[in-house]
Amino acid sequence: MKNSPLPGIQISTDKEDLICYSFDASIADAAIPYAVAWPKNTDEVVKIIKYAGENNLAIIPRGAGTGMSGASVPYGDRCIVLSLEKMRKMLDVDTKNMTVTVEPGIVNGRLQKELEYLGYFYPPDPASLNVCTIGGNIATNAGGPRALKYGVTRDYVMGMEAVLPDGSVINTGGRTYKKTVGYDLRNLLIGSEGTLAVATRIRLRMLPLPEDIMTLLVVFGNPESSGMAVSKIISSKIIPRTMEFMDRLAIEAIENYKPTGLPEDAEALLLIELDGYPATIKKEAERVVDICKTLGGEAVVAEDDMARERLWEARRSISPALYHIKPTKINEDIVVPRDKIPSVLSDLRRLSEESGIMIISFGHAGDGNLHVNIMVDKNNKEEYAKGMEIVKKIFEITVKSGGSISGEHGIGMTKAPYIGMEIKERELGLMKGIKGLFDPKGIMNPGKIFG
Amino acid sequence: MKNSPLPGIQISTDKEDLICYSFDASIADAAIPYAVAWPKNTDEVVKIIKYAGENNLAIIPRGAGTGMSGASVPYGDRCIVLSLEKMRKMLDVDTKNMTVTVEPGIVNGRLQKELEYLGYFYPPDPASLNVCTIGGNIATNAGGPRALKYGVTRDYVMGMEAVLPDGSVINTGGRTYKKTVGYDLRNLLIGSEGTLAVATRIRLRMLPLPEDIMTLLVVFGNPESSGMAVSKIISSKIIPRTMEFMDRLAIEAIENYKPTGLPEDAEALLLIELDGYPATIKKEAERVVDICKTLGGEAVVAEDDMARERLWEARRSISPALYHIKPTKINEDIVVPRDKIPSVLSDLRRLSEESGIMIISFGHAGDGNLHVNIMVDKNNKEEYAKGMEIVKKIFEITVKSGGSISGEHGIGMTKAPYIGMEIKERELGLMKGIKGLFDPKGIMNPGKIFG
Repeated sequence: MKNSPLPGIQISTDKEDLICYSFDASIADAAIPYAVAWPKNTDEVVKIIKYAGENNLAIIPRGAGTGMSGASVPYGDRCIVLSLEKMRKMLDVDTKNMTVTVEPGIVNGRLQKELEYLGYFYPPDPASLNVCTIGGNIATNAGGPRALKYGVTRDYVMGMEAVLPDGSVINTGGRTYKKTVGYDLRNLLIGSEGTLAVATRIRLRMLPLPEDIMTLLVVFGNPESSGMAVSKIISSKIIPRTMEFMDRLAIEAIENYKPTGLPEDAEALLLIELDGYPATIKKEAERVVDICKTLGGEAVVAEDDMARERLWEARRSISPALYHIKPTKINEDIVVPRDKIPSVLSDLRRLSEESGIMIISFGHAGDGNLHVNIMVDKNNKEEYAKGMEIVKKIFEITVKSGGSISGEHGIGMTKAPYIGMEIKERELGLMKGIKGLFDPKGIMNPGKIFG
Repeated sequence: MKNSPLPGIQISTDKEDLICYSFDASIADAAIPYAVAWPKNTDEVVKIIKYAGENNLAIIPRGAGTGMSGASVPYGDRCIVLSLEKMRKMLDVDTKNMTVTVEPGIVNGRLQKELEYLGYFYPPDPASLNVCTIGGNIATNAGGPRALKYGVTRDYVMGMEAVLPDGSVINTGGRTYKKTVGYDLRNLLIGSEGTLAVATRIRLRMLPLPEDIMTLLVVFGNPESSGMAVSKIISSKIIPRTMEFMDRLAIEAIENYKPTGLPEDAEALLLIELDGYPATIKKEAERVVDICKTLGGEAVVAEDDMARERLWEARRSISPALYHIKPTKINEDIVVPRDKIPSVLSDLRRLSEESGIMIISFGHAGDGNLHVNIMVDKNNKEEYAKGMEIVKKIFEITVKSGGSISGEHGIGMTKAPYIGMEIKERELGLMKGIKGLFDPKGIMNPGKIFG
């Protein structure tokens, strides 16, 4: 940028750049920002945020833009997109205290690989892990298949340095896992979708890498039985590290997009993974196979790492595969108590039949987190409107089942109109009060969460 | 109470009651409240809180009064102590979703036992577990020995109903573990020491009960070696469920109080417990014994459940035993990065030698959380003053080591003067802002955390 008001900082107002940063992976409408900035360190983040504050510009923090709810999409044109992708260093691995310190732009998958090489394990594994960043994961408190056994991003963030909307730098959490010293600002920032502060340095907890993994694919004759199997496995006190669900349409979509040999005639699949010591997981696997059998499920074990990787590639390609079916997928990541999955799957089937709109479901059945995809064409106004009606019905079913309208994607812009269905006025008032406290001028990621 | 302004609600202004509720387990000065109330349900909690607000009275929420930092001690005499001990029901065990719903006054140990009977496991285990309540555990985000492997109270609270200082009832969290819907009010309440709201109904996550447990007692010739063993065990990727440390003085104190056969000539002990499948823990135990041996530690395995229980009884009796040495123990539960334990233990020894004041240390070495007890007589003004000087020095050492001044006891009143040593002004400002937002009239547990 010529004559930059922030010399030395990489910043652009070129049309090409602005367009690239005008959207994310959600259905939120693109908006062209005023500028895009790529800070290289905390100091530059501070300068950009202060500049924005002084010039009546908003800040839109952004990781890799893989978000599913529009939380990193500009709101109007008076915005600077703050892309953290150049702050991607792994700063320190502390094996004595089992922590790793990173910058927010580090890609989740890269962190995983680097740690695995050293014999350590960072569990949160969103499907977009080869692209998405830890900063973005923190913004939405991302989970992934392994959340069932290992929890979500929140469970691994020990401390953060973050920049507030007024440019001051704070530290939350610390270097120890245990700590009760004042209010928990760390957890307040996690999942706040960039509306309170921008994390610039993050200390994560890591675990020892499990000694072995066993992966099972179980084929069911109907989705409800697979849902019952999930509930029964957990009730029998086995906690697999993943229990991923796919319905028939999801399987078909994958096989049409990138054939991986999934059984196309199956009505539902569970991808179950156990980890731990070899003797332990062998015993658990036998029990899992038995449970599935009583519900009509047939299990096969992935013979080797390659077979395993192929199954996971299939699972992770569902999202891109769906775009080949219909131009628009309205993707809702609802989460319900585990035992409500069978009835929710029935309700979804009924909604699809009644409306004639295709609904494809997959996701993390073990923790009740389903990705429900309503397949439409945004340019077909009538169909799109029908799709949006279904969204509302799905949220009604979800809240009625004691669930939440977002398990791990956040509210962003696309779900902001619905937050009131789940969060009552008094609670929402407290949240808005907190927003006002952190960001009295409202410059940090406006238009998100509260609309 | 005759002519009660709150008919039907159990409330007392009798001197005997007021005295019983004027103190807790800390060194905080007792203060006689205006009244003590024992609500039986949420509705009564609401009525009491509203009455307090209308009558310029403060509310002091209280579990079992086992707190170590004065968080449940009245602040002046214009207070109603809100004792939750009559709200102690286990409302629902949901084995399909692995949750249990309780009232805040339920005793931790009772919950543990009831769940164990059903084959489930609630990990947080403060030493006072046979007395302390889940509500109190939430107030201080209590941990315990097993936090090393299983985390702290925060990790098990899925959702809460709570009453705000204006009497309105809110719900935070939910019935699912995964959830990203607005800001995390649940974690904000956890560890807030009753200064923001009173939890009245709590949904906890439970785990399957581990199949087997193995308990090892390891004797060391000096405390530093035991600290190094802790660090080395974790680095070798074994995560025991507990690694409890006791120094020589702690061992002596126990044996003088209630002899349990601990080796009195040991300079330090580690009580290490492994859990999981029998084959797995056998393998891990061998490795642990080897590591300790290289550092001069000699290990013995508890032969049976009785031997195991005896060791834990010894560990849990440290705190009461110390009162037999000196009338006053100033108990600080610092937490430092695990690898800093050996140097902190050296510093403590030096502080004790220089001052002539006995310092007894024990605690959860695995997660860096040490209970440091400065043994004095509160009536000996000079000695007590010396003790308080040592407290400040210990906090300086702690913060310099990257640690926290409270691992699991909270700040309450006794550590309020020191919070600024760890939390910077900007962060403290945000916390105070949050307090003002929840409790504009300042009636909820005044005098705590911020002084």
